[in-house]
Amino acid sequence: MLLYDDAIAPTPRRVRMFLAEKGVEIPRRMVTIGKGEHLSPDYRARVPSGRIPALELDDGTIICESVAICRYIEELHPEPNLMGRDAKERAIIEMWQRRMEFELLLPLAGVFRHTHPKMAALECQVPAYAEAQKPQAEKRLEQLDRDLAVTNHVAGDRFTIADITAFTTLSFFPRLCGIVIDGKLPNIQRWLADIGTRSSASA
Amino acid sequence: MLLYDDAIAPTPRRVRMFLAEKGVEIPRRMVTIGKGEHLSPDYRARVPSGRIPALELDDGTIICESVAICRYIEELHPEPNLMGRDAKERAIIEMWQRRMEFELLLPLAGVFRHTHPKMAALECQVPAYAEAQKPQAEKRLEQLDRDLAVTNHVAGDRFTIADITAFTTLSFFPRLCGIVIDGKLPNIQRWLADIGTRSSASA
Repeated sequence: MLLYDDAIAPTPRRVRMFLAEKGVEIPRRMVTIGKGEHLSPDYRARVPSGRIPALELDDGTIICESVAICRYIEELHPEPNLMGRDAKERAIIEMWQRRMEFELLLPLAGVFRHTHPKMAALECQVPAYAEAQKPQAEKRLEQLDRDLAVTNHVAGDRFTIADITAFTTLSFFPRLCGIVIDGKLPNIQRWLADIGTRSSASA
Repeated sequence: MLLYDDAIAPTPRRVRMFLAEKGVEIPRRMVTIGKGEHLSPDYRARVPSGRIPALELDDGTIICESVAICRYIEELHPEPNLMGRDAKERAIIEMWQRRMEFELLLPLAGVFRHTHPKMAALECQVPAYAEAQKPQAEKRLEQLDRDLAVTNHVAGDRFTIADITAFTTLSFFPRLCGIVIDGKLPNIQRWLADIGTRSSASA
């Protein structure tokens, strides 16, 4: 297997953190999005969609989409379990993982993509859209803070892929969006510090 | 189990179509989004997020997120298989399912939410954002048309959850976004007609 990876973007980091939690190492090839290497003919010949991360299997099959890659890894290396031990727990963890993507990552990414100077070349920026998304992201952060007052982790009382999605999202986007996670969000602060102590947090 | 459902919105339809393919019936309670019933104190007492669809298990557990609900149903009723028979196929189908969500459903929903009069009360509409999303949706439709020239279905040669996501998306959004699926997208037309003959298409 070969993992196409980028050192900066939060989505490839989700896969690296997942692998680190599993203690699994996969050979990696770095494809620097910031240099446009994901758009190069060489990369597109291997991964037509040009997306990063991508996992190339030994038979040449390409798997894109970080969650699909993580699920494949989970099936090959079931322990430590990160996506659920039975049908009900898998559904609950997937629900929370998706909430972190659709309700937290997307509005934050919307603010970033539509305001940050580095995204101007890649995105038809609509600053008014970012202005509308920012309060939604802030409201969702307040909800996450309330949830983390009740549970130690995003999907309940143990670390799962939902924490990885939320952690990589909150380690990257807020500071680029002018959003500060401060004492008004004490439970997110506690949770970020807690996740930050895991060795996978440096992945 | 009890399924909270809405007759109009495309996301609850994904679950209905999935259940119809499985031949599984679950008691349903209709919660009409158009009347704001999902925001009522009664519904929020049962489903705090107010999202539709939601599956209430017999122990009171609430599972939201259509794909999480579908995966739970898939595990309870494995046949006919709609999400993959082994780790590799499950990863490939999840990749395509997510592509249909993030690359097709999201830009189309962006156009709809930011232009349609019915959404004005629910969304801080930014028409310029819709203008920017529309060509992205059209470009992604052209890509889907090219892909469907090679395979009979979205994730390969058999019907899967990726077809359900794409079909419910394309049955709902384009006409509300001023996008016509005509002879310029012949493979999508053929695929839509094919999926439309399935009994689950009326779910």
